[in-house]
Parts: sequence; structure tokens; C-alpha cells
Amino acid sequence: MKEDCIFCKLANGVLETNTLYEDEEFRVIFDASPANQGHVLVIPKEHAANIFELSEDMTAKAFLLAKKVAAVLKEVTGCDGINILQNNGEAAGQTVFHLHIHVIPRYQKEKEKMIQWKPGELNQQLVEKITAEAKELF
Amino acid sequence: MKEDCIFCKLANGVLETNTLYEDEEFRVIFDASPANQGHVLVIPKEHAANIFELSEDMTAKAFLLAKKVAAVLKEVTGCDGINILQNNGEAAGQTVFHLHIHVIPRYQKEKEKMIQWKPGELNQQLVEKITAEAKELF
Repeated sequence: MKEDCIFCKLANGVLETNTLYEDEEFRVIFDASPANQGHVLVIPKEHAANIFELSEDMTAKAFLLAKKVAAVLKEVTGCDGINILQNNGEAAGQTVFHLHIHVIPRYQKEKEKMIQWKPGELNQQLVEKITAEAKELF
Repeated sequence: MKEDCIFCKLANGVLETNTLYEDEEFRVIFDASPANQGHVLVIPKEHAANIFELSEDMTAKAFLLAKKVAAVLKEVTGCDGINILQNNGEAAGQTVFHLHIHVIPRYQKEKEKMIQWKPGELNQQLVEKITAEAKELF
């Protein structure tokens, strides 16, 4: 547990919070500033700042739990869709630097709330540069 | 392969596209309408409409590949952050109904492009209702 980390405290029950689910390795809590009602966070109890610091084993387990949580939320809330979102770094919208996966119910009647972006144009030269440089990293 | 599915065709090489990575079970392609340069999609070759239709085995493999792709993109593009996003259902912004995971590089200088939402208030009554009904589903 990292001493100054709020999600370490929440995930490990040092601070109380609304818990949807808990097991030995994870706690699923309701987001205190929800994008929608039923918006929860899948949080590993062990500290990792982001996906880069999370082990492969825990990454697989975390997203499998997110899948399960999505199915449960769909059944309970009757939502029309679900976003599974995991942000890494301030530039990606991460605000608490303890890895968490957002699971967000969505409703057809609230399509204005959807995650969307202004699509850019594909830069073919850059695509080829990235592909070439990536080749030896996989 | 589902006959009328564009992502089945792209993932299985029936249609040509910009490929960052390929193995027996997945293809990683560049999004044709990128949120940012380097925005790619992790696509299983076997058809599944969404996370609910994807097996546990393939879910774990898909997100492990997304983690690997995120690390590769971070190294190659020098981006400051990465979003990992998986949308289920039209209400959640899904536009092609073959499961895919967005991996999106983000840059500190382009924070206006970040995924964000207007945070709502937590409805404690609803939280308790969802938690109670969810209990027997985990």
C-alpha cells in the first residue's frame, strides 16, 4: 500500500466507500463524480500507477472483472450500452494515479453524454513510420 | 467470419488496411478516423459483437495485447498518456458491431482533446439499490 494514495486507502478499506464488489485482489467502487448513475471503478488493491506498472496477470484479471461488472450493471440498470475505459497519464485524463478501470452504463436517451471525438485525418506517412519503428518492439 | 461485417473483413485480411501488428487471433489496425495520430484498434479475428459475446479467454488476451500496444505506442510516439477504451452498444458510442479496443495516444499539449465528462452527483439511494441487486449476480 502506498501511504499517500487515496485509491490504496479506498481499495483496502482504510477509508470507507460505496462498494459494489470486493475480493482478495480487487474492490469495485462507485465513482464519486459519476459520468452516469452506476458508474463504477475496478481498482486493484495492490498499488500500480497505470497499465505500464501493472503485471500481465493482474491486467488480465482486472479486465475480466470489468467484463463481469459490465454484465452485472447491464442486468441491474437496464442500460443500453457500457463503456470500459482505462486512462493512463494526466494527458489521457487520469486524475488519480492508481490504476483503475471505469465501467460506465450508457442510455440511448442520453446520447449527448457519449464519449466522442472529432475524427482527424489519417497521416499515412506517420502510420508507416510508427509501423516500421514498432515492428521490433512486439 | 460474419459475412456482412467490415471488421471481420479487415481483421482477416479480406480487405487491406494499415496493420500495426498481427498474430493468429488478432489484428491491430490504425483507426481510419483517428482521435489522434497513432490511434489504433485491437480487433479479434473471430467475430464477437461486444464484450458480452467475447469469451473470457479472448477478453484476457485482447486486453493484454492492448497493454502491449500501449507500451509500444508510448515508446514510438513519445506520447504523454494513453487511453484504452472499449465501447459496447450504440448508446456507448460503438459504431462497428464487432468488438474492438481503442488504444489512443494523448499529448499534454492537446489536453482539450481529452476524454472528459461533466461529473454528476452520486445518487446514494440508487447506489444502494444497484449494490443490493448486484449481490447475487457476482
